[in-house]
Parts: sequence; C-alpha cells; structure tokens
Amino acid sequence: MSENTRRPLVSIVMGSASDLRVMQAAADTLRAFEVPHELDIVSAHRTPDKLHAYAGGLIERGIEVVIAGAGGAAHLPGMIAAKTVIPVIGVPVAATKLDGMDALLSIVQMPAGVPVATVAIDNAENAALLATQIVATHLPAVRARLLEHKRTLADRVLTTAAETATVYFPDQDR
Amino acid sequence: MSENTRRPLVSIVMGSASDLRVMQAAADTLRAFEVPHELDIVSAHRTPDKLHAYAGGLIERGIEVVIAGAGGAAHLPGMIAAKTVIPVIGVPVAATKLDGMDALLSIVQMPAGVPVATVAIDNAENAALLATQIVATHLPAVRARLLEHKRTLADRVLTTAAETATVYFPDQDR
Amino acid sequence: MSENTRRPLVSIVMGSASDLRVMQAAADTLRAFEVPHELDIVSAHRTPDKLHAYAGGLIERGIEVVIAGAGGAAHLPGMIAAKTVIPVIGVPVAATKLDGMDALLSIVQMPAGVPVATVAIDNAENAALLATQIVATHLPAVRARLLEHKRTLADRVLTTAAETATVYFPDQDR
Amino acid sequence: MSENTRRPLVSIVMGSASDLRVMQAAADTLRAFEVPHELDIVSAHRTPDKLHAYAGGLIERGIEVVIAGAGGAAHLPGMIAAKTVIPVIGVPVAATKLDGMDALLSIVQMPAGVPVATVAIDNAENAALLATQIVATHLPAVRARLLEHKRTLADRVLTTAAETATVYFPDQDR
Amino acid sequence: MSENTRRPLVSIVMGSASDLRVMQAAADTLRAFEVPHELDIVSAHRTPDKLHAYAGGLIERGIEVVIAGAGGAAHLPGMIAAKTVIPVIGVPVAATKLDGMDALLSIVQMPAGVPVATVAIDNAENAALLATQIVATHLPAVRARLLEHKRTLADRVLTTAAETATVYFPDQDR
Amino acid sequence: MSENTRRPLVSIVMGSASDLRVMQAAADTLRAFEVPHELDIVSAHRTPDKLHAYAGGLIERGIEVVIAGAGGAAHLPGMIAAKTVIPVIGVPVAATKLDGMDALLSIVQMPAGVPVATVAIDNAENAALLATQIVATHLPAVRARLLEHKRTLADRVLTTAAETATVYFPDQDR
Amino acid sequence: MSENTRRPLVSIVMGSASDLRVMQAAADTLRAFEVPHELDIVSAHRTPDKLHAYAGGLIERGIEVVIAGAGGAAHLPGMIAAKTVIPVIGVPVAATKLDGMDALLSIVQMPAGVPVATVAIDNAENAALLATQIVATHLPAVRARLLEHKRTLADRVLTTAAETATVYFPDQDR
Amino acid sequence: MSENTRRPLVSIVMGSASDLRVMQAAADTLRAFEVPHELDIVSAHRTPDKLHAYAGGLIERGIEVVIAGAGGAAHLPGMIAAKTVIPVIGVPVAATKLDGMDALLSIVQMPAGVPVATVAIDNAENAALLATQIVATHLPAVRARLLEHKRTLADRVLTTAAETATVYFPDQDR
Repeated sequence: MSENTRRPLVSIVMGSASDLRVMQAAADTLRAFEVPHELDIVSAHRTPDKLHAYAGGLIERGIEVVIAGAGGAAHLPGMIAAKTVIPVIGVPVAATKLDGMDALLSIVQMPAGVPVATVAIDNAENAALLATQIVATHLPAVRARLLEHKRTLADRVLTTAAETATVYFPDQDR
Repeated sequence: MSENTRRPLVSIVMGSASDLRVMQAAADTLRAFEVPHELDIVSAHRTPDKLHAYAGGLIERGIEVVIAGAGGAAHLPGMIAAKTVIPVIGVPVAATKLDGMDALLSIVQMPAGVPVATVAIDNAENAALLATQIVATHLPAVRARLLEHKRTLADRVLTTAAETATVYFPDQDR
Repeated sequence: MSENTRRPLVSIVMGSASDLRVMQAAADTLRAFEVPHELDIVSAHRTPDKLHAYAGGLIERGIEVVIAGAGGAAHLPGMIAAKTVIPVIGVPVAATKLDGMDALLSIVQMPAGVPVATVAIDNAENAALLATQIVATHLPAVRARLLEHKRTLADRVLTTAAETATVYFPDQDR
Repeated sequence: MSENTRRPLVSIVMGSASDLRVMQAAADTLRAFEVPHELDIVSAHRTPDKLHAYAGGLIERGIEVVIAGAGGAAHLPGMIAAKTVIPVIGVPVAATKLDGMDALLSIVQMPAGVPVATVAIDNAENAALLATQIVATHLPAVRARLLEHKRTLADRVLTTAAETATVYFPDQDR
Repeated sequence: MSENTRRPLVSIVMGSASDLRVMQAAADTLRAFEVPHELDIVSAHRTPDKLHAYAGGLIERGIEVVIAGAGGAAHLPGMIAAKTVIPVIGVPVAATKLDGMDALLSIVQMPAGVPVATVAIDNAENAALLATQIVATHLPAVRARLLEHKRTLADRVLTTAAETATVYFPDQDR
Repeated sequence: MSENTRRPLVSIVMGSASDLRVMQAAADTLRAFEVPHELDIVSAHRTPDKLHAYAGGLIERGIEVVIAGAGGAAHLPGMIAAKTVIPVIGVPVAATKLDGMDALLSIVQMPAGVPVATVAIDNAENAALLATQIVATHLPAVRARLLEHKRTLADRVLTTAAETATVYFPDQDR
Repeated sequence: MSENTRRPLVSIVMGSASDLRVMQAAADTLRAFEVPHELDIVSAHRTPDKLHAYAGGLIERGIEVVIAGAGGAAHLPGMIAAKTVIPVIGVPVAATKLDGMDALLSIVQMPAGVPVATVAIDNAENAALLATQIVATHLPAVRARLLEHKRTLADRVLTTAAETATVYFPDQDR
Repeated sequence: MSENTRRPLVSIVMGSASDLRVMQAAADTLRAFEVPHELDIVSAHRTPDKLHAYAGGLIERGIEVVIAGAGGAAHLPGMIAAKTVIPVIGVPVAATKLDGMDALLSIVQMPAGVPVATVAIDNAENAALLATQIVATHLPAVRARLLEHKRTLADRVLTTAAETATVYFPDQDR
C-alpha cells in the first residue's frame, strides 16, 4: 500500500467462530484490495466487557471502519456503533430458523443518532467492498483498485454473456 | 410489603422517554401488586456507558428482576442480559413502521447462553406480571396477591359474559 | 444442592415426544446447574384433561417454574399460564413449514393478564437458563453457578478469539 | 325453523367483550338464516375452568357447531377443539399490532388430530355461513335458505355491475 | 357404515397429481373412519370447465363436504365454494418457495359470503377429521368413532409420556 | 384512434364496486392514451357463472388484454387466465387487514401454464400502462403516445428537480 | 412461423449465468411455441452501461417483449422498463436466503408510470407464456398454438385424473 | 469548514419530490455538522438518463458519499452503486402499503460486488450521520463534531432520565 501505514484500517469482528463461514469473505476481499485489516471475535452477549473496551478503543488505534457480522438478535454492530463515531458496517448472518430476517431487522432498524451501514444477508464480501470504498475516499491507490475491480466485474459478465447468448428462429428446428 | 425491604426488587428501564407511553403500565401493575421497584431511562445506543454500569451493578443493589422495553433494533434487554445473571424481561415496543415485529425479533432471538424473557408487543403489563410471579417464588404475600388477581380477572370476565350472553331461536322474530 | 430439597423446582413439559429433539437441551442444562427438575409430555390438544390437572397442581407440588415447548399452534405454554401464577417459560419449536414463526407468535402474543416468558425459536437451553435465573433469585448456590457459567462462556469465547484473531498488512503478500 | 328444535345448534364464543365488534356479525348472520344459536364470552386465558366445562358439555347440550373468535395468541378455538369432536370454526380477530396475522397462525396451524376450521381475519360472517352450511347438511330448509342467499348475492353483484359498467371509445372525447 | 349409503359423502379433490403426496392422508383418514368418499384431480387453472361442472353437480350427487387441496395461488377451494353451498375445506399445500404461506393466504382470506374452512399447511389429515366431524353431526356411528379416536389419541400420548417422563435430583450425579 | 376500431381492446373488471376506488385509475389512464376499453364488475366468488361466460367470450369479442383487480383471496385474475389465452393483468387491491399482501400472493403465485401479469399493490395505473404497451405492439399510434408520455414523465421530474435542487456550503450559515 | 420474420420478437435477459438454471425454461417454452427470441446476460449492477444500451435499443431492433429474470435486489426488469415502452415481464429468481420474496417485492412494487409484468417466483415458463400471449395479439398462428396448448394441458390433467380417481365405500374393507 | 473546500462532499438524491418529507432530515443533519452537500431529485425509473449521467459523474465532481432515498421497488441507490465506486447509502422510504419492507429488501439485498449501505426505514438522519462519519475519516474537524454530538445525545438522555426516574415502595401508598 503506497500510503505506507502499519496500522489496520479496517477491523472485522464477529459474534462467534461459527460466523467465520460467512465472514471470511470479508477478510479475503480486503486482502484482494490490499487494505490492512484485523479480524477478531467479539461477542456482544458473551464478552460484553471486551466489546466495551474494543469499541471504546477503535479511534485511538486508528481504525477507520468496522465490519461486524452477527446472527439472530445480532446486537454486535449496533453496540459498537453506540460506542464510536467511525462507520460501522453490519452483516446480518443467517444463523437461525428465520434465515437471517431476524438479524437483518436487528441490525438495520437502529434508532436516530446511531447508524449501522447494513448490507445483504450473509454478504460479507459487500461489507468489505463498502469498507474499501470508505477508506478509498482518501486513499487514491485503493480507489484505483476499486475502479479496476469494477471493470473486471463487468468484463467477466460480458465474457460470460458472449458465451451464453443465443438467438432462435423457428426454422432452425426444421 | 410484609417482607420488610427497602430496596427495589424490580427495575424497569426503557430506551427513551417516548417508550413511557407503553412502559408506564409496568410500573402501574407493580404498584398494584405492591412490589417495590424503580423506573429509569437507559439507552443502549445513546448511553452505552450508563447501560454498562447499570447492568453491572444490578446484583449488588439487590435487584431481582429487570424489565427492559425497547423499539426498533431494541438492543437494551439483550445487552443487560449480557452483563447480569438475574432474569431480564424484554418488552418489544412498536416504535417504527414495522409495528414492533423488528423489536420482537431483536429481543426474542437471543443466542444460547443469554436468555431474555420476551412478552407480547407493547404488553408492559404482562412484563410486570411476570416480574411479580418471579419475586413471588419466594414472597408468599405477593403470590397471594397474584392468586387473588387471577380470581378477579376470571370474575370480571364471568360477569361481563353473564351480561353479554344471549340465546336466539327463530320464532323470536315472528 | 445445598438447599436440600427433594421436590423438583422446574417442570419441563412438551406437546409431543418429537419435541424432545429440541427440549432435551433444557433438561441437560438444568442438570448442569444441579437444579432439581422433572420432564413430561403434556399435549394441550390431545390430553387437555392432563393439562388441566397438571397446571392446576403445580403450586401444590412446589414447582417454581414451568418450561413448556410446543410447535405450530403451540397452545401449551399459554394454557398452563392460564391456570397458574408461577412463571411459565415458552419455547417455540420449529415443527412446521413456517419454521417456528407460527409457534413464536402463538406463544409470545399472550393477552394482558396472562404472560408467557418466551425465548428464541428452538432455544430450550435458554429456557433452562432463565428458569435457573428465576430459582436463583432465592438460591445463592445456584446464582453462584450462573456467575461461574457466565465467566466460563466469556473465557471460551476469549480463547477462541485468541486462536482466530489475525492481522493483515499488504506487504505480507510480497 | 321447520325442524322444530328448542336447543341452539350453533354456539358463538369469544375471548373478550371487545371481540363483539367483530363477532356480532356471526350472530346477525345466523339470525338471518334462522339458525338457533347462543352467544357467550369464554376466555381461554382468563376463565380456563369455564372453557373446560363449556367445551366438555357441548355434545351433551346438543350443540352441533362452535364458532370461536379470538385475537393475539388466540388459543380459544384450538382449546375447544381439544375437548370436543363437533366442528369448531375459528375467527382470527385483528386485536394487536400484528393485525391478525398472529391470531391467524395461532388458530390455523393446529396439529394433526385436532382441526379448527379457520376463516379470514375478522370475517365472522363467513364463520356463520360455514356453520349454517354444516347444519344444512341435514336440515333441508336451511340449505334452501343458503341457495336463496347465494342467488341474492349474485343478483346484487349483477345489478351493481349493470349500473357501473361502461364502455369507452376515443371519439367520445372529441 | 350402519347408515347404509352407496354415495360418497366426502369428495377430495386436488389441483395436480403432485398434491397426492400431501392429500393421500385425507383419504387414509376418511377410510379409517369408514366415511364413504371419492378422490379426484380437478385443476382450477388447467381444467376450469371440469371445475365448473364438478362444483355445480356436488349437491345433486349428494356430496356433503368437499376437501380441496392446492398450492401456490391455490384457487381451487375458493372457486368450488363459489359454486356450491356445501362446506368446502381447504388444505394449503406447500408447493412453492414460499412454503405454503401463499396457499394459506389464498385459501383463508375469502371475502364475506363465500367461506372456505381452512386447515394447517399440508395438514390433509385434519381436513379429513373436520369432514368427518361434519358428517358426524347427523351420523351417530361416525361420531362414536370420533370419540373413540380422541380417546385413543390421548391414550397414546399418555403412554408415551409415561415412558418418557423423568425426574432429576442433583445427588443422582454423585 | 387511427386504427379505426369500434370494439374495446382492453377489458377492466373487478370483484366488487368497492374496488372502483382503486381501479378507476386504470380506466382514466386508458382514456388518456385513447385506448378503447370497457369496465365491468365480475366477482369470481359471487358471480362465478358470469365469470365463466365472460372469460370464455373474450377472444370472440376481440378483447386483446384483460385488467382484473381483486383483494383478499383475489381469485378473479387467475380464473380469467384459466379460461383464455389473451394476456391477463392482475391488480392486487389492499382490501383486508393484510394490506394487499394476501392479494399479491394470490395473484402472482400462479402455477406453470397459466400466467397472470401482476403489478404493484393498488397500482391500477400501471396495469393500464402495461395494457397500453401490449396493444401498442401492433398499434404504432398508441406506441407514439407511450413514448410521448415517457418524455413528459421525465420532463416533469426534471422540472421538479430543478425547483428543488439545493447546494449547501457551511459558510452560508455565517 | 407464417408471419415470416427474421428478427427475434422476444428478448430474454438475466442478471447472471447462475439464473440460467431458472430462465432456460423461458427459452424452451418460446421454442415450443416457435416464437423467435434471443437470450442474453445483462447485469443491472455489474454491466449498467450494457443495460443502458440494451434497453435503449430494443424498439429499434424490433423486439416486442422483454423477459427479465433477477434475484435478490432484482433491479434488472425495472431498469429496462425505465428505458423502454415495450412490455417488460419480470421473473423473481429465488437466489438468496429470503427465497425470492426479496426479488418479488423488488420487481412487482414499481412506481406509477413504469410497470413490470411480474410472474411467480422462479416461474420462467409463465413469463414465456405471457410473452407468447402478447405477441399472439397480432399473430394468429401463435394464438392458435396457445389455444392448442391450453387444450393439451387440460387433456393431460383429465387423463391423470382418470388414472388417479378413486371411490371408497366402507364395506370394501370387509 | 477548516478544510476549505468549495465542492459538495455529500450528494443527497431521492426518487420523487414526495420523498422530501423523509429526506429533508438528511440535509438538515449534514447542515448541523457543516458538511457541504447538494440535494437533487433523480428518478431511477422516470429519469434513467439523468441517473446514468449523474452516477457516472460523481467521482469527477469530487462527491465522496451519496445518500439515496427511495420507496417501493426502490432501485435508485442500487443503480447509483452500479455506476460508481464511492460509498452509496440507501434510505428505504415507507411509500406503499407494505410500509417500507419492500424498499428495505430492494435496497439491502444487493448482489456481491455492488454494496449499498442501508439504514433503517425512513431514517434519513442516520444516513446523514453515516455520511458524516465517512467524510470524517479524513476530516478531523468533522470527527470532532461527531464526538461532540455523541456526548450531547448522551447528556440529553441522561437529563431526561434524571427527570423521569422514580422509585416506589409499597408504604408510599399508605
């Protein structure tokens, strides 16, 4: 990273190790964009004191964005947002019989004053892209990678489209 | 109260003053059962430090049950439960366009290890009754009042029924 | 149990043997906390007379808390609560195509006057923890076990976190 | 009624007097079809003993069909069905913030062995029509009234249609 | 059947052969109660003319109750009810990605004037029990079988309960 | 209309006169595009014979598109589609406590073989636009009006935008 | 096709190659009706410029109907409809944990002015039938095939019904 | 603003003027934090070309964050995100009978590769706070205001709490 930093810019946390199944994609994506980051487990419900300390120390440690994944009642993203003013991105994890609808509502329906930037159920990749977009607001090299990635995505779809596209006229069958 | 205590047994908290519209019924009900209690505003999202201190001090202060009401993302009951081992009763408050379904799922879908005893949307009276039932497990005078109340409820329905009941036979019309 | 009792304090009931798959966790959890308890099958819909007798006899038998699990229309917890003033904890069991949402609403949306303490769908462990918290309001030895359990839960998460946590800097790839 | 009976054939019950707002339509409809019936208040949650006696005595009293209306957790229809083998029709009453969806699921999702014939939310008129259809299986005079009513309904719609129908051609505007 | 009839009393229809997976239970249950019945496939959407003729001829053929199962948009029960005044029981079949919630609402939310007696999603057994309860209003032998069946159901649960019930005291572990 | 026709091309039907509140917008829109059309009331549930005759005669009468509005169980669009091969557009009308979600699922979830083109809840204007688009596939004058309308819509938004747009810089406040 | 055309009349597009699993049925159905068509991949989110060009060029290329399938946020059908006045049919694809309910609402709830003709979740066959019905408004040969197909569908159900239908009388068991 | 800029950093757009009722709060909040911003109306469905140009020009104009509000099918935020790599915040506006649930799912359920940062239904204030948090990652003066605002929020709740808090002991009534 040309900006020459030795601190993680993005902090990925999740409520339990079982969320790694979903949240690993966030770390993989940040790595692809060469964004320095850390990954940790912080349970709002089982380690509330660690949560308290973690959320309270984010600014001092120079973290710029948090990605927090949680399922069910999913209080982790909102409780971090309650303690800090850096952007918090919430990933609703489908971890119960309600397939993530519970986590989605628990994360997105935050009261005025304490936002959580919510992404799609189980979509940790998008959380990482959003975090990358945020740090890119002042890191031109990262923004360049995002633009390149957007072109790549489009090219990949266009290539697949070219391979898939068909035209049919009735006399083909005769 | 014959058990002669000068500490509140039940603590009622809510996320904002606007929740009083719903939560006042909890205080009124506890008063009807002569259960010593306190009422306060503790916002999980706007006063997380007060929440931390409040939840951490409940046992030492001799509180036996918490009633916590919250709407929307509704993290208050779950975050208190994360910090204490006394029973926490959650009241989902209908405070958003989703009519309390968001608060219900945010409160009830707690992960294994950290229960919240959830009652019906906006039903603060039932939260107070449940708290009264809990303290009554070791306060015979309170249990006696609950039994009396149950009889009264039944009598009231029976009286209304007697006033309302009708029988119809076709020749009545002729 | 230092309080030296030979009566079960908690009674676990469920609507059918097929609910054991979910409800066994309640018994296992109470056993882990050394809380005397019983487990039985009482169907609100198929054995209403047993339900009537069972719910009517709870106080006399010295039961302090009921845990009732049911799926679908899930009337068992509410009908027990209709007949007694001891706390009733309801476990919505995911037993139909609606994945427990039917049971959740049937159990939690009780009318004013007759509360049921509802926990998450299929979360019988939390029902048992809540029951343990309730009996612990007057059994210090049980409360001590709850505090110990909370510490253990936190320690386990902290240990997993320590094993899982990672930090990434871009030059690691070079 | 030509069949010359002095017992009510249909019994309408509801959980509280506030349900009369919805359930009165059931009585009005039965009266229009000259079906002998009674109307009473029986609360599954507040008067479980009356419910027990009521449901247990239906057959002996010669009641042929029950119409039970309830809101929220809505256990009344299912608990009557648990105690009798005469058909029980359930009317989900919209009585909470969930607009009757809670009552609908609580009433319709009965387990195998104990059916409740569920009609639309707040549609007590249809419950009465269904009850009338059931007694009409062996009362030809009632069936004749049902056939007549169906013709009347159709005629009323056809008349309204004739008054409402329009045809438009563009040059009408010129 | 002592009432000595050679016409089917109950007519079971379903929208497609794939519904047999669910609807066979209705036929099996009617057979267990010795209720004469027929089973046929009538698609509201693919064979509307057969539907028209079928529903229009039910009364003349002496059918007393219809059981109609359908999934998705599930118009079959309602369209039969539109054409006849005998009771129509609707079984919402879980046939789409929406797991029967679409069929449930399509079947139960009928307008005033045209009721459909709706049972739980996929619960064809209960539809047959309800049909049996309806014909039993004037067939004492059938009612006797229903009462016997209710006792059997209860006995089965009581037996399972006796085999499953346990009591635990802490010193058992020592 | 330059195509010089004296038959209605679009037929608007609805289940009851109360649906006019919503469905009038369909007629108004077709009039604005000068599309010949008729409007009638046809109840799937209360006038099934009229429905049968109506749907069976559409092609012979030269109708090219049907717009059918219905609420609750909302069988009208699907039952017309069952009887004809001209395109049927369904408008879910919010007519019950479920705010149109019941009508939406009843209309859109049609089985393979019998499509209904569903538009948004209560959006009769869009149904008329869709019908206009369909007849425009072979009526160039109508298509020209659609293109003009699209430009007008855009212009109206652009004008409102120009009146509404603001820019704020902090020193404006000083 | 007797109408002698060498341009595709229907254009099938989808957001990603993974939607082919569902959308192939649309192509197969159009082929069965001998309707000239093309199939392509156009991602609203990954190839917005292709979408812009594609939707803007539809009329000039003589396309008469678009079928667009998409899952999740599912913006493809609506964004094509924003750019053209030919009919756009939307197929909600079940591609996320929400089983297509997200795609259904994203596609069907279009604002006034810009309709999308929505079919059932994953029901690409019905989208193709609807497209065929639309082109058949001015292609008599295609309409003849639709009428023939409707008869075939009915015959197939009638044949299956004849093989499946049963009648049961109790003495059969003896 | 000490950073001395004459370009808006945040761009607020909405689909129609009627969304101003909700979206004005975003502008008001940004003004309170002295964040330079613009506000405009861009309809994804009615002005797709303006959308195309607008979203394509954001980076060149130096906009750092977009706030996009939309109701119903709500394609605006997602279509902007499709065309840019700056962070897009979506506000689901409750504009239909579905009370914003349609807009929430349409906005939040974006596919991998194209994130939208979603906030609560109708919560434009939180969208502005999130945008402020994002620009604050490199504007220390803005971050200072956010910290100050957080303290103010907490103080306001603490003051209200102090005025509201009560303690009750039973002998108060005597």
